[in-house]
This record gives sequence, structure tokens and C-alpha cells, in this order.
Amino acid sequence: METLLLDHEAVEANAPMADVISAVSDAFAAYERGNAQMPAKSYIELDRYNGDFRSMPAYLDAGEWDAAGIKWVNVHPENAQKYDLPTVLGTMIYSDPTNAFPLAIMDGTALTRLRTGAAAAVATDHLAVEDATSLGIVGAGVQSYTQLEAIAAVRPIEEVVISDLDEERVERFVDRYSDAFEITAGSVADAAACDVLSTVTPVTEPIVDRSMVSDHTHINAIGADAPGKHELEDQLLTESTLVIDDFEQTTHSGEINVPWSVGALTDEDIHAALGEIVVGDITGRTADTGLTVFDSTGLAIQDVAAAHVVYGRAQAEENGRPVSLVDTTVR
Amino acid sequence: METLLLDHEAVEANAPMADVISAVSDAFAAYERGNAQMPAKSYIELDRYNGDFRSMPAYLDAGEWDAAGIKWVNVHPENAQKYDLPTVLGTMIYSDPTNAFPLAIMDGTALTRLRTGAAAAVATDHLAVEDATSLGIVGAGVQSYTQLEAIAAVRPIEEVVISDLDEERVERFVDRYSDAFEITAGSVADAAACDVLSTVTPVTEPIVDRSMVSDHTHINAIGADAPGKHELEDQLLTESTLVIDDFEQTTHSGEINVPWSVGALTDEDIHAALGEIVVGDITGRTADTGLTVFDSTGLAIQDVAAAHVVYGRAQAEENGRPVSLVDTTVR
Repeated sequence: METLLLDHEAVEANAPMADVISAVSDAFAAYERGNAQMPAKSYIELDRYNGDFRSMPAYLDAGEWDAAGIKWVNVHPENAQKYDLPTVLGTMIYSDPTNAFPLAIMDGTALTRLRTGAAAAVATDHLAVEDATSLGIVGAGVQSYTQLEAIAAVRPIEEVVISDLDEERVERFVDRYSDAFEITAGSVADAAACDVLSTVTPVTEPIVDRSMVSDHTHINAIGADAPGKHELEDQLLTESTLVIDDFEQTTHSGEINVPWSVGALTDEDIHAALGEIVVGDITGRTADTGLTVFDSTGLAIQDVAAAHVVYGRAQAEENGRPVSLVDTTVR
Repeated sequence: METLLLDHEAVEANAPMADVISAVSDAFAAYERGNAQMPAKSYIELDRYNGDFRSMPAYLDAGEWDAAGIKWVNVHPENAQKYDLPTVLGTMIYSDPTNAFPLAIMDGTALTRLRTGAAAAVATDHLAVEDATSLGIVGAGVQSYTQLEAIAAVRPIEEVVISDLDEERVERFVDRYSDAFEITAGSVADAAACDVLSTVTPVTEPIVDRSMVSDHTHINAIGADAPGKHELEDQLLTESTLVIDDFEQTTHSGEINVPWSVGALTDEDIHAALGEIVVGDITGRTADTGLTVFDSTGLAIQDVAAAHVVYGRAQAEENGRPVSLVDTTVR
């Protein structure tokens, strides 16, 4: 038996966004229904290298399909400067839960971008106004691309405003999407004036405040992934209908970790977990809903769900590179 | 940058046993000195498939070298019967701790066999009589081979007694080593009469009792890896100088888990952790030491240490298969 090796190009080529969004939605539902197992992320802190490793194993049973795997990922902020490498490098082992055979080894970084965009789309689908035609994105880094691609799959996005201090990044983003969208570079406030806003920055001082957004904006707060990071000011968070992905992760390292840790925002300010909305236990946007925020930290079940789509497609299309990895003859 | 793909043949070809033993010894020392990080094994239980997945991440700093990685492994007891696959299938991601680049993906099952043999050798080196010339092995499965190869690297083993109910397994083992050793098939008692004994079976009812072994035997209890398993009767354990690898793992699923859980064996019966002996805080065998037992559960640091040897050698010898896996261009 062979294991499929899928590099970033193979991952991207085998990830139709609508399918990834659907699988990630199924994953949130499975998690909410107790049909997923996701041991807490475990960290290895490498103080001498100013970095860390994170293990993200998960299994989920979506009813029609189930899937298992682990993403091994890191954050090394000095990588670009010291090693000409990305800060984050993920590797995913995607395994058959019936017998544990490693079906595929994938570029986990490409997978992370896909599943993060897909989660924002699931949230946007439940929380944004139906006729949202404009999308603002603050931060034109690697995660911004899948925000646009995923959200445009669930709302009729026509206008896009991209905001970043790095002009080269902005230009690259505009060039990539200028054929498909009416796209402009703008300030944070310009982006925040759109129907839907995704913030994808590593800031530790909030950059979006209440006055910048309308009474019906939906915001995907994607950037915060460590204690101390937050992109949205407290007043905006407490005045919004706040939806999280996972309580433990979000209070530890998500958008709300700073105000929650000092008590400026409490458990009562959390409206729902995304899974509760996906399964219908709590309603998403209604006529009475105002400002909404989805605090995304990124769950291991999302990686496994995205990997399920990628593997299934790669196998069907005979993409990827089959390799002999584990010995199946020894008893 | 490319990632080295190392299947079981490549793993075995790049693992000189003396080097693996030395690296595993260094790993126990690093762990004892607080220079290792090993988050608790996390489990995913798959009741519907009668199986599980285990994540084993670790980092260790041995002074002259450091290493990091994760082994993703499982136990699916029905694999042979249902899928013609081994019960255990491991995959190891070996990463550079300085920047987290995945240096190699390896067959984790071959690695497990190597590092398990190496740990038994480290223990045997500190605990067996110096002039041990005979080795008994109970259980002629996949783990038995590296028991012999590793222990013969630290003691002048001449005679080997192999014991297993499966005659075909015994024959295969005898054929493999008959040129290098005076090797005979025998009963459990025959094997237990040797200077060093390794038990490598999955039994839940003890098969070796006190009367079978001498007053100076050293035993490596390798087989128990889950609650309920044990190979040595309680009296033998309580009368021995008992050395463990890790308190948490051994009381959960090691050789002593059954008597410890019912109070037949207590913390006071544990003489030392192997790391304490390796660093010299507690002495190994002295003239006064009688029967000794090493309770091996298998630690993630052992996998990382063995992977360090395999990767270093594979790279130096230009073995293995370099593949493009993670995208290093995205920022």
C-alpha cells in the first residue's frame, strides 16, 4: 500500500472551495454533536529558538464520512529573517481511521489557509446579511487569499477592499483578483465599511474600533492565534453578537483572550459556538441581529475535514505522488 | 528545501545500533536533567473500529545535539485479520527545532522497534551482570529482533533462548541469528534461566514467575503497553530492584500497571527511573544487587533520539528519497 504525498500545489489543486466549506461545516456539526475527538493542542516551547511546535490530532465522524489525522505545526517568528523560511510550516498526516494506514502526507500550511478561509465562510454564511456584496480584508498576507475565495463562495461579493501597510503585498493581492472582483486598496476604515470584514493581522493593539463598522457588519476575526493578540477593540466585541469556534482555544489565544483574561469581556458576552449555529440549536443572523463577530482560532477538526476533501479528490483524479512509506508486511 | 522520505528499509539501513543506544541513553539523561519536553501522549479512542491513535511529540536537548519530532501511531488489534495490515502503524515527522522545517518523514514502526531495543540495552548495560553471556527472549514477534541486536551490543551474549507458542515465528528468529549466536528454542522457563531476559508479549496473565529466574537475573519487561497487560508475576516484581522509564506512563499502561492499580505494588517498590541511573544520581547494579527489572513503556524522546541518528546517517550517506513537501516560499 502506498501513501499519497501532496505538496502545496497538489493540496490547492485538489481543494474545491465549496467542498472544503461543506466539510468544515460538517466538522463543526460533528464536534457540536459529540461526534468528534480533538485532544487539546499540545505545545513544545523552544525558548532558545523563539519558537514552538504544536500537535493537533483529531478524529471526526460526519455521518456519511469520517476522517482522522494530525497536523504538526509551529510558530517561529524569526524564520524569515534568519532562515528565509515561513514563520509557520505545517505537515499533516491523514490516516484511515478504520485501520490507521497513513493515506497521505500533506503540506499542512496550504491546508491551514484553506480550512481557515472555509471556517470564515461557514460563519459568514450564518451571520452576514444575505445580500452582502462588499468584503473588506485587513492584512494582505498568506491567509487573506482564502478569506476572499471562501467568503465569495457563500455571498455575492462584488467589491473588495484590501488594506495592508505593505504595499507590495497589497499590489500582489489586487493583481491576483482584479479580473474577478472590483478591488481597491484602502485604509482599515475603508475595509471596515464593507458588509463583511475579515481581519488577518498579528497585531497586539486593536486596529478596528466600533465607529468604523456599521450596525449590520459581520466580522471574521482571524489573526489572533496567541495570548496577547487582538485586532478588535473591546467595545466592538462587547456590543457584537459574538460567536467563537472553541471556548478553550479562544479564551487562551483567540481574539477575545485579552479582554477575557482581564474581565473586560465575560462568558456572558459569548453568544454561541459556531457548531451550535451550524446544527441549528442557536439561530444565526435574524432581522434583529446587529453587528456580529466570529472569533476564529482554528481547530484540528477543520484540518482533518479539509484533508478529507483533498485526499478524496487527489485519489479520484490520480493526483499526488504515491510513495512507499510504512511497512505493511511485518506482524 | 526537500524533506527526506525514509521507508522501513531506509530507517533500518541508517540505524547503527550502537549509535541508537547512545542517542537513546542521551535522551534519558536529557529528560532526567529537565532538558527535554514531552507532552503527555494523547489518545483518540476509536471504539467503532476497536482501535486508537496516539500522538507522541517531543523535543530534547542532549547538549551536543538537539532534536524534535512527533510520532503518530495506533493500535488496531483486528488489522491483521480484517485488513491484512499490522496492528501498529507508525509515522514519524522529524523536524529541525531551529526553524521547524520537516527534515524527514519516516516509517515510525521500524523506528519503534529500534528505540525499544535500544532502551532495553541502556537498562541492561546499567542493570545486568557484567559477564552476562546468555539472553532469553519470550515472544518472537517483531520486537524480539531488536532486543537481541541491542542487548548483544552491550553484553557479550553468546547463547540465546527464544520462546514463543508460534513455531513459525521461532523458526524465523532462529534462522535469522543462528550464524551469530548459539541459539535454541525453549520454554518460558528455559528463556528465564538466562542471565538477561526480555519479555515481549501482549499477555494479560503473567507468564514469568519468581521461581524461574535466578537471584541475579536482569529482566526487560517490554510487552505491556496498555492497562491490563502484564508479563511478570507480582512477587517477582516486588522482590526485584525495579526501574521504570516514566512514572506516568508505567502506572497507566506499563508492566506494573495492574499490581500498582490494586495496591499490590506501590511507589516505594520503584527503585529508580532509568534516567536517574543514566545521569549517575542513583547507582545501577552493585555487588549487592539481586534481581532487576526494567519496565519499558516507550517514550517519545526515544523516538526522537532514534530519528536523529537515522536522519543524520541518511543525510551523510545520501540515502532516502528527497521530496518536495512543504512550500517554503510563502510569507
